[in-house]
Amino acid sequence: MATGWGSLLQDEQQLEELARQAVDRALAEGVLLRTSQEPSSSDVSFILMHRIPSVNGSQFSFPLLMAILVVSYAPFTLFPSLVPSALLEQAYAVQMDFNLLVDAVSQNAAFLEQTLSSTIKRDNFTAHLFDIHKQVLKEGIAQTVFLGLNRSDYMFQRNADGSAALKQIEINTISASFGGLASRTPAVHRHVLNVLGKTKEAAKILSNNPSKGLAMGIAKAWELYGSANARVLLIAQEKERNIFDQRAIENELLARNIHVIRRKFEDVSEKGSLDQDRRLFMDDQEVAVVYFRDGYMPSHYSLQNWGARLLLERSCAVKCPDIATQLAGTKKVQQELSRSGMLEVLLPGQPEAVARLRATFAGLYSLDMGEEGDQAITEAIAAPSCFVLKPQREGGGMY
Amino acid sequence: MATGWGSLLQDEQQLEELARQAVDRALAEGVLLRTSQEPSSSDVSFILMHRIPSVNGSQFSFPLLMAILVVSYAPFTLFPSLVPSALLEQAYAVQMDFNLLVDAVSQNAAFLEQTLSSTIKRDNFTAHLFDIHKQVLKEGIAQTVFLGLNRSDYMFQRNADGSAALKQIEINTISASFGGLASRTPAVHRHVLNVLGKTKEAAKILSNNPSKGLAMGIAKAWELYGSANARVLLIAQEKERNIFDQRAIENELLARNIHVIRRKFEDVSEKGSLDQDRRLFMDDQEVAVVYFRDGYMPSHYSLQNWGARLLLERSCAVKCPDIATQLAGTKKVQQELSRSGMLEVLLPGQPEAVARLRATFAGLYSLDMGEEGDQAITEAIAAPSCFVLKPQREGGGMY
Repeated sequence: MATGWGSLLQDEQQLEELARQAVDRALAEGVLLRTSQEPSSSDVSFILMHRIPSVNGSQFSFPLLMAILVVSYAPFTLFPSLVPSALLEQAYAVQMDFNLLVDAVSQNAAFLEQTLSSTIKRDNFTAHLFDIHKQVLKEGIAQTVFLGLNRSDYMFQRNADGSAALKQIEINTISASFGGLASRTPAVHRHVLNVLGKTKEAAKILSNNPSKGLAMGIAKAWELYGSANARVLLIAQEKERNIFDQRAIENELLARNIHVIRRKFEDVSEKGSLDQDRRLFMDDQEVAVVYFRDGYMPSHYSLQNWGARLLLERSCAVKCPDIATQLAGTKKVQQELSRSGMLEVLLPGQPEAVARLRATFAGLYSLDMGEEGDQAITEAIAAPSCFVLKPQREGGGMY
Repeated sequence: MATGWGSLLQDEQQLEELARQAVDRALAEGVLLRTSQEPSSSDVSFILMHRIPSVNGSQFSFPLLMAILVVSYAPFTLFPSLVPSALLEQAYAVQMDFNLLVDAVSQNAAFLEQTLSSTIKRDNFTAHLFDIHKQVLKEGIAQTVFLGLNRSDYMFQRNADGSAALKQIEINTISASFGGLASRTPAVHRHVLNVLGKTKEAAKILSNNPSKGLAMGIAKAWELYGSANARVLLIAQEKERNIFDQRAIENELLARNIHVIRRKFEDVSEKGSLDQDRRLFMDDQEVAVVYFRDGYMPSHYSLQNWGARLLLERSCAVKCPDIATQLAGTKKVQQELSRSGMLEVLLPGQPEAVARLRATFAGLYSLDMGEEGDQAITEAIAAPSCFVLKPQREGGGMY
């Protein structure tokens, strides 16, 4: 959106008016974050029992909610970003391939073990995940339905001839976020362009409703589990600024009469249990689907939390994702997938899917200590533009 | 919603979980108020010029909005209120009668002068409004299109036989508010009932979109004014906590490619002007419609602001409302309308409309110093249940 818009960025007064309008619209549309000062609560609210006298002299009271504090809007760009339609179509087309690839990796225990063997030796977090993976395999998988909600992140590579190419930076296989807030941002960007009188451009902004799509995936898993009174258990962090992103999915589920209960790993430790058929119960409520919005970083796990994770993985609730799918999202696996011939092994007889996938690979390089890592670093210093480095550790999840 | 729901109010833990859910839903739906600490701004935000390097070594920068502060949700009841469908239908049916009555009063200069003669002597605010009214009449009305956006407030009266009757408390003819936020509350109340598993009751909550209806009224006035580039001028207060209610209407207008500019009376004094045809200009932009969300209370007017109001009234922009319609909403006029035979004078040949209107009258009594007021007070003390007293002064507007 840079070309021809440069003068806009010079007019500070207009930018400020646009920002005021955009902020109010973002707030009204629910593009919200809890504040860092109050990450555990959307407000410091109180329930006022409001009493009004009725004609016959008795009192009628009802709860009225009053707030002292408060939320803020999620950071967003003032203008939308231009995406060449061919690249957007390409990203849509390749997503199913990525989903099938993630599934194939997660089901391939030998590949995971071989690929992660060096990582496990140095990285306690991946080692812990892998231990649970092995333990669950040994005991026997209780649930054959798996739910993956994967998010591919892309950047555009400028080719030598000036054309743009779609390059995947990473795929998130656990706790992929911002689907909820992203459902609300097109309205904000349309608003900004309409204020500028750019109605044609505004009309070109595509609608997007990932929160509905994500909810429909969870609803399908819930349906396949097949117990009308069972709940969806959302594993949440205590301090969750991004709750409105999650609430958007919860709201979609509630509209389908599927109830979500939010609990922390600590709650699972205290009040979660399996019955003899490994059915999962939280507070005496049966759980059909476990949806992880926590557990993707080392800091999320105390020893107690690892125990809770094991309990959940052993259960016959559908996991979103199961631990093998989480492992399939590690950087080390993504690096291994870019090795020559590897996609053909994992997706035999699917040369077209392999070609679509490989076209989006940006190249991932090991920065491990050792010969392989040294070589990659040497190459990076020699030709820095080949690299996209993102400060992200193993584990794959976002936010 | 009290009957059969009493046990709910006893379970504090459940109430708190419901409140958490309801607050998050209200925030996500945009049921918002600015905080009293920061009534002039939705945030303490800054525009960050975000720079990212591109492949060819140049930098690309774009504005990214970041917030420090904040808004809160508007107070709301946790549960919806039951309204007997017959009374709701009655309220719908009588609204057009009220609109026609307000219009008839506003066009009846003799009635207004006679009715308000005693008020004007004691109340400077009404006297000021009336002065402008007379001055504009004397000069000759520049615009024959008038827009009224009126809100009737009702309570239910319990009759001796246990049945309920619809009684109008007041009608607001200027700056009637909460149409915007009311458009968003059905989703919140449905959510609360769905969380309780009361899906049938939730499905009975009617959708309501007054912000669209209000915007369509303004859009019609804009269209009748007939100048494609003219703006809607929203007269706003500097400290406006209820801006999201107004933004909902602005957004509906913007979606119809009608641009709203928000200005204070002070801005009109400084930068507003009339041309020789009494066309109104603000900052060199022609104004088709003036929409007052300010100017309904004495505290809203400095001497300078009275001058700005006169300028707006003299213009050929469509006023919403014009000053005569504002006067038609005063308590004194509403009291006069309840006098025997008065409706028949104002709405000749419309006995059915008169009957519908009179059925909703709760009775308004003068508390003026003097014989009439003394009599009313004596009656009130003798039979207090006949009275609905609301702490509201002349001027009629809400919020």
